[in-house]
Amino acid sequence: MTARLSERDELGATMQRLGRDARAAAAELALAASDTKNAALKAAAAAIRKSAAKILEVNARDVAEATAAGTTSAFLDRLALDAKRVESIARSVEEVAALPDPVGQVDKAWTQPNGLRFERVRVPLGVIGIIFESRPNVTADAGALCLKSGNAAILRAGSESFHSASAIAACLVEGLSAAGLPEASIQLVPTTDRAAVGAMLTMPDIIDVIVPRGGKSLIARVQAESRVPVIAHLDGLCHTYVDGAADLAMARQVSLNAKMRRTGVCGATETLLIDRCCAATHLTPILDDLIAAGCEIRGCAETRALDPRAKLATEADWSTEYLDAILAVRIVGGVEEAIDHIRRYGSQHTDAIVTEDKATAERFLSRIDSAIVLWNASTQFADGGEFGFGAEIGISTGKLHARGPVGAEHLTSWKYVVRGDGQTRP
Amino acid sequence: MTARLSERDELGATMQRLGRDARAAAAELALAASDTKNAALKAAAAAIRKSAAKILEVNARDVAEATAAGTTSAFLDRLALDAKRVESIARSVEEVAALPDPVGQVDKAWTQPNGLRFERVRVPLGVIGIIFESRPNVTADAGALCLKSGNAAILRAGSESFHSASAIAACLVEGLSAAGLPEASIQLVPTTDRAAVGAMLTMPDIIDVIVPRGGKSLIARVQAESRVPVIAHLDGLCHTYVDGAADLAMARQVSLNAKMRRTGVCGATETLLIDRCCAATHLTPILDDLIAAGCEIRGCAETRALDPRAKLATEADWSTEYLDAILAVRIVGGVEEAIDHIRRYGSQHTDAIVTEDKATAERFLSRIDSAIVLWNASTQFADGGEFGFGAEIGISTGKLHARGPVGAEHLTSWKYVVRGDGQTRP
Repeated sequence: MTARLSERDELGATMQRLGRDARAAAAELALAASDTKNAALKAAAAAIRKSAAKILEVNARDVAEATAAGTTSAFLDRLALDAKRVESIARSVEEVAALPDPVGQVDKAWTQPNGLRFERVRVPLGVIGIIFESRPNVTADAGALCLKSGNAAILRAGSESFHSASAIAACLVEGLSAAGLPEASIQLVPTTDRAAVGAMLTMPDIIDVIVPRGGKSLIARVQAESRVPVIAHLDGLCHTYVDGAADLAMARQVSLNAKMRRTGVCGATETLLIDRCCAATHLTPILDDLIAAGCEIRGCAETRALDPRAKLATEADWSTEYLDAILAVRIVGGVEEAIDHIRRYGSQHTDAIVTEDKATAERFLSRIDSAIVLWNASTQFADGGEFGFGAEIGISTGKLHARGPVGAEHLTSWKYVVRGDGQTRP
Repeated sequence: MTARLSERDELGATMQRLGRDARAAAAELALAASDTKNAALKAAAAAIRKSAAKILEVNARDVAEATAAGTTSAFLDRLALDAKRVESIARSVEEVAALPDPVGQVDKAWTQPNGLRFERVRVPLGVIGIIFESRPNVTADAGALCLKSGNAAILRAGSESFHSASAIAACLVEGLSAAGLPEASIQLVPTTDRAAVGAMLTMPDIIDVIVPRGGKSLIARVQAESRVPVIAHLDGLCHTYVDGAADLAMARQVSLNAKMRRTGVCGATETLLIDRCCAATHLTPILDDLIAAGCEIRGCAETRALDPRAKLATEADWSTEYLDAILAVRIVGGVEEAIDHIRRYGSQHTDAIVTEDKATAERFLSRIDSAIVLWNASTQFADGGEFGFGAEIGISTGKLHARGPVGAEHLTSWKYVVRGDGQTRP
């Protein structure tokens, strides 16, 4: 496997071959029994555990190269694996195996007055292209979800995670092989040549949907260039709003977790909004926890006046996804101003309110049109696993097809099966 | 209202104004009560009935112009209205009013072990652009469905149906106004300038999804040029397969209806496949009915040998959507050959099998990956109204977001509403 192909036409030929093999695999996968797909997933999880040392070894190489290239700490946090994370990757694959098979599920059934019996039956999408950057676990999560949902996957890893992704992909192929499923069901593009992305985006006859996972520049490129439908997974500019009727202890623990549990994930809160009518009592204790955990605070003028530990925020801070231990803090005049702020600066990903007032909470939940809205819970729950989807291929902020965490069920379409007794239409 | 604007920049300004007004209307519609939306629909239906004479008058003008331009009879069939069709348009709008409101529906609800309570709640998509050609009823069906589902609509009628569409759109606006909803909830682009289509396709910040309704050249243009996601509604190359175990009387009535009920609709059967083992008994009676109804038969050599009334089909006939009283007929060696033929030539729209053999039927239903597959029923049932959806904005042959008839429910997305008691993520 070479990391860079010598010739453009060699790349074209490689992509065509990958595509042909993927379509053939997809036709087989669409009719594969649940037991067979689950056997492949379990064998893949076993292979990941068995290969943990190898995976960590090549991951260390990826991390060393990324560090030498001077990438950010948030980036390294997403890239770096340890024994616990490898185990968690294997467990995620097993969790996908344990999920119900969406393919063949009848999610609606009804009979019309003329006696026609209708069923809406779930079918795979076909071939899914996943383009990702730094997180090596995407290889396993995306591959497992595509397989579970009867889809062939073409995975394109960024150069930063290429060795880690290759080692994990080899384990998935080992699982497919053990279960007698086509090895081309999950393929990793065998090059880090950026032109491979362009090739994937212009193969609408081969690839049914593209799922980009990465930074804004990747998403923007995919959305601008793709001739294949895209399920877009943007990072999140998430908000937590502490209402005047919030319980202080709850507001402290939720705010701290929402920002600091992991700062590099898309569900991390980037801006904290605090109701003016509780700022005098709630602001300083909340900032105490955050600052003690190592968080830098950038506050509006009113925040600074109340707590001079905050640096002064600029207009740009309200639109910045730090993905780091930095938090923008703004004091607002109640839930309506919080809603206005989020509508203006938010990314329709995940936003939370902390309050004991049910009416205020319901107003927030109905007026904020984000994929995920939470009441009295941390924005860090924005994760398919936490939703009970087993694993996610990403979090969609678009409104078409699937919104929020995209799990196995969301990688299917449906067909209508209609059974009659010779009905003709008047 | 002028049918052609004099200046390009005037068109740009018009489209920007339409778009701005549509987004403002969409924000209001998303929160509108079901009763208000239904009152608007009922008032619109009343206005259509009241304006029937006016609608028929301008439709006659559209038909006269289309006839003078030498359009096909299938095209005129789609364009022409009569009193019965106008009444049916009004009734369709009332049927949409009577449907359940998809917005706010909780279609899944569950609790995770940590006590977080999840709801998946339906929300509107936003602004929907509909680009159509000949059928004036699309104005009412699409406008009503968008309103019901809380979406603003920007409708772009073809020059052929422009006067009919304008008259119907005026009735919809009358309904909106009567119910106190923004008139910009349903807007008809006030020009037949083809550049307006290009403008709609490049407004991703304004229009959330484009629904093209028309011939292949329109769909191809939209799919190639659109920067806005597309729900594609292709015409259908539909098949009816008469299996060896088919009941002859049923095969006759289903085949006749599938082809001849209306030849210009996308669910009309274009190719009849007949199992060799019943061709001797079933072919001639089936062709008797079709020929008596005025259908031209183009058969394979074996068909001609059995029934010389058939002209000889060429390879092109298997790929042709006649949308006219012409039927391609081929004799195949059982269900597997029928499946192979449909996979090769079909458009994944609607395909039917006629058989008394359950195992054969189920094989066909599971192996044919079309949006609609039928057993012992006419392909002409490919229609949202016949599915119980009230009305449809079209039939999607794509696999993303919505497949098959696209009704009010399919013009929504969802958001996840999560309620907790201060949960933080470990």
